[in-house]
Amino acid sequence: MQNFIFENPTKIIFGKGTIGRIGSEVKQLGTNVLLVYGQGSIKTNGVYDQVMTSLREAAVTVVEFPGVKSNPVLSHVLKGIELARAERVDVIAAVGGGSVIDTAKTIAAGVMADPGDDIWDFFTYKKKICGALPLLTVLTISASASEMNAAAVITKEDGAQKYSIRSPYIQPKTSILDPTVLFSLSPAYSAYSAVDAITHMLEGYFNNTEPDGILQDRLVEGLMKTIMESTERILEDPHDYKARANMMWATTLAFNGLTTAGMGMIALPAHMIEHSLSALYDIPHGAGLSIILPGWMSYALPKKPVKFARLAREIFDVIDSDDIRAGAAGINRLKQWFSFIGSPVSLDEADIPADDIGKITENAFALSRVWGLKDYGREVIAEIVENCKGRQTV
Amino acid sequence: MQNFIFENPTKIIFGKGTIGRIGSEVKQLGTNVLLVYGQGSIKTNGVYDQVMTSLREAAVTVVEFPGVKSNPVLSHVLKGIELARAERVDVIAAVGGGSVIDTAKTIAAGVMADPGDDIWDFFTYKKKICGALPLLTVLTISASASEMNAAAVITKEDGAQKYSIRSPYIQPKTSILDPTVLFSLSPAYSAYSAVDAITHMLEGYFNNTEPDGILQDRLVEGLMKTIMESTERILEDPHDYKARANMMWATTLAFNGLTTAGMGMIALPAHMIEHSLSALYDIPHGAGLSIILPGWMSYALPKKPVKFARLAREIFDVIDSDDIRAGAAGINRLKQWFSFIGSPVSLDEADIPADDIGKITENAFALSRVWGLKDYGREVIAEIVENCKGRQTV
Repeated sequence: MQNFIFENPTKIIFGKGTIGRIGSEVKQLGTNVLLVYGQGSIKTNGVYDQVMTSLREAAVTVVEFPGVKSNPVLSHVLKGIELARAERVDVIAAVGGGSVIDTAKTIAAGVMADPGDDIWDFFTYKKKICGALPLLTVLTISASASEMNAAAVITKEDGAQKYSIRSPYIQPKTSILDPTVLFSLSPAYSAYSAVDAITHMLEGYFNNTEPDGILQDRLVEGLMKTIMESTERILEDPHDYKARANMMWATTLAFNGLTTAGMGMIALPAHMIEHSLSALYDIPHGAGLSIILPGWMSYALPKKPVKFARLAREIFDVIDSDDIRAGAAGINRLKQWFSFIGSPVSLDEADIPADDIGKITENAFALSRVWGLKDYGREVIAEIVENCKGRQTV
Repeated sequence: MQNFIFENPTKIIFGKGTIGRIGSEVKQLGTNVLLVYGQGSIKTNGVYDQVMTSLREAAVTVVEFPGVKSNPVLSHVLKGIELARAERVDVIAAVGGGSVIDTAKTIAAGVMADPGDDIWDFFTYKKKICGALPLLTVLTISASASEMNAAAVITKEDGAQKYSIRSPYIQPKTSILDPTVLFSLSPAYSAYSAVDAITHMLEGYFNNTEPDGILQDRLVEGLMKTIMESTERILEDPHDYKARANMMWATTLAFNGLTTAGMGMIALPAHMIEHSLSALYDIPHGAGLSIILPGWMSYALPKKPVKFARLAREIFDVIDSDDIRAGAAGINRLKQWFSFIGSPVSLDEADIPADDIGKITENAFALSRVWGLKDYGREVIAEIVENCKGRQTV
């Protein structure tokens, strides 16, 4: 195991009927809250009313900032910072999924930056985050684990750059996870959530610098099985509480630092390339990942056959004793499963023209330089994207 | 999944060569530290020197409080509180295993109590802990997970009561886990550590109020396999860093709230009865648990055959399709494994007379009332202890 620091202070309030606690939790951190949310789905599923009632009962002043879209954009974040400053909010509450939470995180850090600072410098690592307003979340889409980690991803429209920040200052103080909120999540987004969480874990599983991570491997495998089973039950019955609850907690644990602690440096090449798809075509992150991940796996299989074979045997009960063949079978089975739950597994299915491979490669290559993934030059990236063109198996 | 709150803010600094960070970590919380440690093993394995050098470099004033014994006692805690008050310490550092950390936790809370308060009232739940000095730990025995939880266990000699407290105030702020420190841990204590951590998890696995904890079950099974494999490697080579590291992190995760979050109320009947063995005979906690746990399992098997069969199949690859028979086979295999690693599995082996079953039962029954385990009356406890007399299998 590599040396590591593990510190995850977010308080999780989990379960049915917990949204009403948001008011008292906010009240402990401030009196004037910026309420960040999305395109209004929380007004149809009852979450908005529950949150507002609770905040009102706690006598907190609310400044609303709606309109976050999936693949959230910098221009909207900048408006949020401006509003937060003008209204002198002292705490931020995000009610939504990863896009809303990431927008709120960036606003929280942005408000504390010098007014002359270019917020985008945080994303290109030119400037360091030195503080943030306290942030709380009410989670409505389980996938990103942003509710219990220190990262945020934002797209700068100009240049189509989907980049990320990471700082303990933007880690939520409290997150409320009520699985009943997920009952109204569409089958498509329920599937994308599973893809996202599985990809988070598999990037750590395969792309670490620790050769002997048996403890962490088992955590990943246990969570992955749980996510797969839960997703299948959810697609049969969107109101299956147990499945929604297992899914909600498993996706949080999938990317809150638990499965990667001790695994050394983690690279996220599938995320890196997917960011280009989202940035260029505005497709849902999970849908982009189910296209890219199998393509990346096919590229990486010959480099790590033992580990790919392990995944195939543990998750898909593949019995082939040859590691390469077993690994390839596992990749095919994962791809089939992504298809089965309704997430695309080729550029074709997402209506992304094969002619665009050069453009996608160039965009991803720029991010590979920012993230320091020096093994991912243009040729490698192009090879991976090429693997993602059609539905053919490994 | 049951509703739950998960909050575990302890910062873990893990790995080779991390002990030197204790000074700067202490310095962030205070300037006058009470250094709590045990019977002096840290002076022979080099840990004491590393800690003192680091504290000196951080210009922290050190008040030493050594002499904690395993199964730590109230009278010693009271001396620590007196010393901490007299020297006006503002932070506490525990360098040791669970006994040292639990002593330090109780001192931390005791210092902040009213001088007229009876500290034991915290343990009988007559009084609530309302504050504590900040606590840091340098872990030298991995077993209790006290380094990353909010609990402490202390024995009151008068009356032979081994009772516990739990409060977020006594949760360590920072814990330093350097696996190389474990190289000098004896085979016996390495084995007892494994027993303790496994028992922590199995109590949650079997004694919860949530019928469908598949996510948590898998976490337990993954950690348990890792602990068993690591212990076998450690007994072959005490300097196996990978095995010591996996063991150190797995035992922390085994009782830091992770595997029980969402499982409802957790009862600890094996711990309850073991506390009587430790209180009455001063045997190591792990040794007591390897005697009691299989006896409790034999008692509980007919009540939860499906779950016992699951453990047998997942951990020991038992293939019997009959749940009761599979469960019994699993219990036997666990008992054999405890024996194999050198931990006793009968009262006999620990030189505890069979005639004392009445005395043990009476002591455990008193604790069952304090802990509210109303299913554990005198008859049930006596039946379980009876199961622990000899080495016979289920």
